[in-house]
Amino acid sequence: MAQHNVSVEDTLKVLVDNKKYSTVKDVLVTMNPSDIAAIFDQLAEDQIPIMFRLLPKALAADTFVEMDSDNQELLIKGFSDTELKQVLDELYIDDAADIVEEMPANVVSRILMHVTPDKRREINEILRFPENSAGSIMTTEYISLSPDMTVRDAFEKIRTTGVDKETIYTCYVLSRFNRILGLVSAKDLMLAKDQDSQVESLMTTNVITVNTMMDQEEVAKQLSKYNFLALPVVDSDNRMVGIVTFDDAMDVMVEEATEDMTIMSAQTPYDKSYLRTSPFELFKHRIPWLMLLMISATFTGLIITSFESALAAQVILTAFIPMLMDTGGNSGSQSSVTIIRAISLGEIEFKDIGKVLLKEFATALMCGITLGAVCFGKVMLVDGLLFHNPQVTVLVAMVVCFTMATTVMVAKLIGCALPLLAKKLGFDPAVMASPFITTIVDAISLMVYLKIATAVLF
Amino acid sequence: MAQHNVSVEDTLKVLVDNKKYSTVKDVLVTMNPSDIAAIFDQLAEDQIPIMFRLLPKALAADTFVEMDSDNQELLIKGFSDTELKQVLDELYIDDAADIVEEMPANVVSRILMHVTPDKRREINEILRFPENSAGSIMTTEYISLSPDMTVRDAFEKIRTTGVDKETIYTCYVLSRFNRILGLVSAKDLMLAKDQDSQVESLMTTNVITVNTMMDQEEVAKQLSKYNFLALPVVDSDNRMVGIVTFDDAMDVMVEEATEDMTIMSAQTPYDKSYLRTSPFELFKHRIPWLMLLMISATFTGLIITSFESALAAQVILTAFIPMLMDTGGNSGSQSSVTIIRAISLGEIEFKDIGKVLLKEFATALMCGITLGAVCFGKVMLVDGLLFHNPQVTVLVAMVVCFTMATTVMVAKLIGCALPLLAKKLGFDPAVMASPFITTIVDAISLMVYLKIATAVLF
Repeated sequence: MAQHNVSVEDTLKVLVDNKKYSTVKDVLVTMNPSDIAAIFDQLAEDQIPIMFRLLPKALAADTFVEMDSDNQELLIKGFSDTELKQVLDELYIDDAADIVEEMPANVVSRILMHVTPDKRREINEILRFPENSAGSIMTTEYISLSPDMTVRDAFEKIRTTGVDKETIYTCYVLSRFNRILGLVSAKDLMLAKDQDSQVESLMTTNVITVNTMMDQEEVAKQLSKYNFLALPVVDSDNRMVGIVTFDDAMDVMVEEATEDMTIMSAQTPYDKSYLRTSPFELFKHRIPWLMLLMISATFTGLIITSFESALAAQVILTAFIPMLMDTGGNSGSQSSVTIIRAISLGEIEFKDIGKVLLKEFATALMCGITLGAVCFGKVMLVDGLLFHNPQVTVLVAMVVCFTMATTVMVAKLIGCALPLLAKKLGFDPAVMASPFITTIVDAISLMVYLKIATAVLF
Repeated sequence: MAQHNVSVEDTLKVLVDNKKYSTVKDVLVTMNPSDIAAIFDQLAEDQIPIMFRLLPKALAADTFVEMDSDNQELLIKGFSDTELKQVLDELYIDDAADIVEEMPANVVSRILMHVTPDKRREINEILRFPENSAGSIMTTEYISLSPDMTVRDAFEKIRTTGVDKETIYTCYVLSRFNRILGLVSAKDLMLAKDQDSQVESLMTTNVITVNTMMDQEEVAKQLSKYNFLALPVVDSDNRMVGIVTFDDAMDVMVEEATEDMTIMSAQTPYDKSYLRTSPFELFKHRIPWLMLLMISATFTGLIITSFESALAAQVILTAFIPMLMDTGGNSGSQSSVTIIRAISLGEIEFKDIGKVLLKEFATALMCGITLGAVCFGKVMLVDGLLFHNPQVTVLVAMVVCFTMATTVMVAKLIGCALPLLAKKLGFDPAVMASPFITTIVDAISLMVYLKIATAVLF
């Protein structure tokens, strides 16, 4: 694609400044809602409402959904009652519920006042589910059919009710009590040879459902596993209450991967994008973990001081502490991150702990022996011969090499076991990632190192 | 959902052993291809072909696609020519190409011999694109319409050609030279009021396309950004050659997040699932990085030995090395992981480096001052008073506290700058994650620590 030196954004700003509104409108209507929203989010606060009012109704609503919540709030506050009603009428229920969740109380009551009673009931329905549950991300707008409808009837129903539905491509066949009897895809209906055949004869009865309380991550995983466009959500009585669509599942997958990475790097997860998060917010998400881990390093300090005389006599022992600690940390984080990801992808669970420990033990043995051997060579050649350090003896090199091998093995076993244990105990495995494991491995490897060193060298 | 103590898998095994094939078949046909494939992957090698032959044609092909490549190979080798042809005829082109990519040469030539010449050409077309490009994950089976067709004609074309297409829900309107004029969704067609109106009058002309060479991660990002079911892929002449569908994009997103996490924890990424990766493969993916990082720790060792006499005189200085190093490492990894993720989500790029440095500097200042202050208190109270260490003086505590603050700030700035720099230079930012940054931060913080300590204390 060609490189543009002038951005559309800049052009639009100039056009608005010069009050060339009809040109602005002509440009905007050729664009996608996500792109328009991205441009709006870059504009000055007083330009957003002007631009927004230029958009045709449906495009305005789609753009509104994609905007930052700060700017949504700004727009709602500036809307007349009629404008607010127009935008709200165009929104899908799940998007409306998402927006309501982000707004301050006075804006929420204004929104709820201007939606139809039906919509208000449905928004409240979604809002009562816990955050990150299937119920909280579902939409209540889907196409339902009855088993005795013909293909022709089904098309008719889709034609009359479809325009407001988030997807018309998967239709659910429900009993009188809203229990799911089966599903038919729009493809099944379109390719049906006989317009008079009953929906019942075309439908798939093997329907995968999720419960309203299921975690959104699990919902996204199911949807991706089966390559479905949408998954039906049922309540505890097994009655259908809504659907989760693939686009929401995609957002969930991205969110959850980000959350895992954030937790693995010892931070409390947060929703906002990086550039919209203030330094003070970043500070609040980072400092508790840094503090906790810093204070837990008291143990390593105590271990070192208890071997005071040995370390004073042979400073060369100190010189290898960073190398041993870092290699231990890296070995542990390789295993822990691998296991945390495999747990989160559903590849392994606690019952696999035997297999995992065995595999990691074998890997650790190979890594430990290799690193130990290379370490021996490195210490003798680089630290001893190259830098002429008289304190580097064969005995010292052997102690370092043995500690290296032990540290790597301990690190890998702890690294794979802790996340599985955390999962079993109902914690997020990601919390057990490198920072915690490093702290534990540090203490163990220092103990091993200094115990052996004092035993062998003194 | 109810807990099952007997798995379907075990039941099926028993049924096969007892040759109750028709029961097995009845059970299997109620299940989803992904679930059947998961069960097959657990079975003994001799049971797989038996079970597979029980599946109806279409279900067999769908299940085949979801199986592990080892088992696909096993099945293909056992297939008669007719069986192979039957499965291949049911496969979508992109799935067939994926399978061909994983198979050894002799199996590949057997596959290519048994597909239709058209399919063979299309498979080869896909295979010539580089791995991880849009071309390599696209399918060439999509619905194309001409602008002058009526809604009725379009339905007719979908009905006659739709059964083989991966999606019939987005139809592309093409010129005689395969250039994209617009798109119509099945929804547009189904909700059209007049069956005689022309496709041209219903189509959206603002079509987002991706190039065959675009990275698959970028394709998935585009698809998710616009909430599309499929994205059209065009060649360098802007002619349409295929589509990428949302389910493939979902797989790409999961793969890419896993790859980022693997690289960030200093491992070479690999495709297989954890339980299918042998210890020796894990070893090969982990050892080069461990070795590199271990050897780079030679620097920290040199720094320590160059301050030998100071460290021999005051072993208490050694006691704080692990705490300083770990806190530095943790601070750096908080920043680097945050920035790497933000880059990969497209939230920031190199041009934002000013904003990022400023934000991280402000955060680092707050973290540094807080940790420095708490560290001073901890050293005086815990190490000094609680554990009665006479070597802990106010001066020592001040040196540690100052180093702590400096280390945190240096770590955060390096942690945010390196990934952006890597991106600018065309490397994967994830390579610059915690392990590398830890090594650099270790060296810097040791230098600062020991320089100040010797200046102040001796």
